[in-house]
Amino acid sequence: MEQYFHWFDLLGVGVFAVSGTLMAYRKNMDGFGVLVLAAVTAIGGGTVRDVILDLPVFWIEDQSFLIASFVAAILTIFWLRFQTKIPQTPLLIADAIGLSYFVVMGAQKALEHGTTPLIAIVMGTITGSFGGVIRDIMANEMPLVLRGELYATAAIAGGIVYTQCLAFGVEMYTSMFAGMIVILLCRLAAIRWNLHFPVFKS
Amino acid sequence: MEQYFHWFDLLGVGVFAVSGTLMAYRKNMDGFGVLVLAAVTAIGGGTVRDVILDLPVFWIEDQSFLIASFVAAILTIFWLRFQTKIPQTPLLIADAIGLSYFVVMGAQKALEHGTTPLIAIVMGTITGSFGGVIRDIMANEMPLVLRGELYATAAIAGGIVYTQCLAFGVEMYTSMFAGMIVILLCRLAAIRWNLHFPVFKS
Amino acid sequence: MEQYFHWFDLLGVGVFAVSGTLMAYRKNMDGFGVLVLAAVTAIGGGTVRDVILDLPVFWIEDQSFLIASFVAAILTIFWLRFQTKIPQTPLLIADAIGLSYFVVMGAQKALEHGTTPLIAIVMGTITGSFGGVIRDIMANEMPLVLRGELYATAAIAGGIVYTQCLAFGVEMYTSMFAGMIVILLCRLAAIRWNLHFPVFKS
Repeated sequence: MEQYFHWFDLLGVGVFAVSGTLMAYRKNMDGFGVLVLAAVTAIGGGTVRDVILDLPVFWIEDQSFLIASFVAAILTIFWLRFQTKIPQTPLLIADAIGLSYFVVMGAQKALEHGTTPLIAIVMGTITGSFGGVIRDIMANEMPLVLRGELYATAAIAGGIVYTQCLAFGVEMYTSMFAGMIVILLCRLAAIRWNLHFPVFKS
Repeated sequence: MEQYFHWFDLLGVGVFAVSGTLMAYRKNMDGFGVLVLAAVTAIGGGTVRDVILDLPVFWIEDQSFLIASFVAAILTIFWLRFQTKIPQTPLLIADAIGLSYFVVMGAQKALEHGTTPLIAIVMGTITGSFGGVIRDIMANEMPLVLRGELYATAAIAGGIVYTQCLAFGVEMYTSMFAGMIVILLCRLAAIRWNLHFPVFKS
Repeated sequence: MEQYFHWFDLLGVGVFAVSGTLMAYRKNMDGFGVLVLAAVTAIGGGTVRDVILDLPVFWIEDQSFLIASFVAAILTIFWLRFQTKIPQTPLLIADAIGLSYFVVMGAQKALEHGTTPLIAIVMGTITGSFGGVIRDIMANEMPLVLRGELYATAAIAGGIVYTQCLAFGVEMYTSMFAGMIVILLCRLAAIRWNLHFPVFKS
């Protein structure tokens, strides 16, 4: 199982790096700044998680994550040279898969290091969403995740399902799968029907 | 004394969370993004302090801080559903109390871990003001604290008074109290007479 | 050699602090917020490096860095009171020297702590450029380094030259010097001929 996880990790990092590269494209960035934005989007969330939990930062230990994000960025740059139309829907679905995977893996890493379920949910949400937050801040935009679209909400819901499954004695991989499915469905529904979760009276 | 500190800690976190929620309201944020902004405002400063000092991050050790910020955010959301007018002055006073408390506690934590007084003053200022800095950055605004209103200045003044009282042998709680009073008075004066501290010729 | 390095360190910190102060000036900031922006620009990159590598943060260990950035900020404020014209070219050259020095020292610190050359290059680039990134984010601008001008590119090129010289058995100080020269020449060329490195078809 572990070796499959590593490939999923790299895939997730790659998907997030693509979203960073596209933001750099929209903002008309030049030079290797594109690599910076791609890498920050891809590994920023996990970096914040590891720093806050005081664990060794994952991409220092294993540089394949950094390489995956650079490769994804370079492939995207080449794609954009020949093809300016970006396939929006496949990208959103890939991002949803990346999010669901990272949230659950982030929550699991926190639990492994002895946090409470609440902290694990927060750490999962940070892992899944803070790369995008840093991307948007660097691109001088208000972070998308704060403006709704059920992004953080999906992450929190998945984190709750995962930690509660574990609490009720469900086997680990099953719990992880359940958490991921919840996030994926929330995101796909939000994308399909353009759902929001308003908290303030407008 | 220690158990009172914990309640003050939670109160301070709550006040800062309210200011994060109000920013989310002004920026018309949706979904649980509000919780993110509230939490980041409330615990961001202390997180940066603990990470830089390489100490365990305080809200990982004790999740009541996180819960306090969520509760404060949810209460504020309900308040805003029934009452759109925000009582500005009480909020500013509460924020001034929160600031004075956090700055001195942050400086004290730094000193406890063997820093010099200068570093302790810087750490106190970070503890008190960086939550608001991250809040403003996330809301895509230039941080208020950098635009004056004697905010950082009050924090630095209080830090100096606190560390110098200690250096002159004043008892710890008295020194803390002196530092807090200085910050509180600076802030209240700045709010009352709209004081600024210009450094550039305009 | 070591004691000279310390003076170069302080000089580099001072140069970066000046660029932070100038940004604060352009943004018409008030109060001690100027000190914050100066310090963040000067020591932000090294702070991110040390936190990610889980090393003691350099300016906590040795407060002369913080003092150097404050002194540079205060001198700049006085300069700007008597003289509103800022000498652009000398400042850019000083910044290029600061960058080349910080990138190589950052990469070396990473290698010393057992990272791979790739991670060392990334850490050097972070050390040299992230202070400016945080400065621009705090000033609510899109980071300069992401918009090109061969800034990150120069840093990466210097990091590659430095680590590859070491890999080919070149003596350490010679390798460092080679890396710095490459960065300096890239930057000076970029400033002189206003070079960019476009990656997207416009």
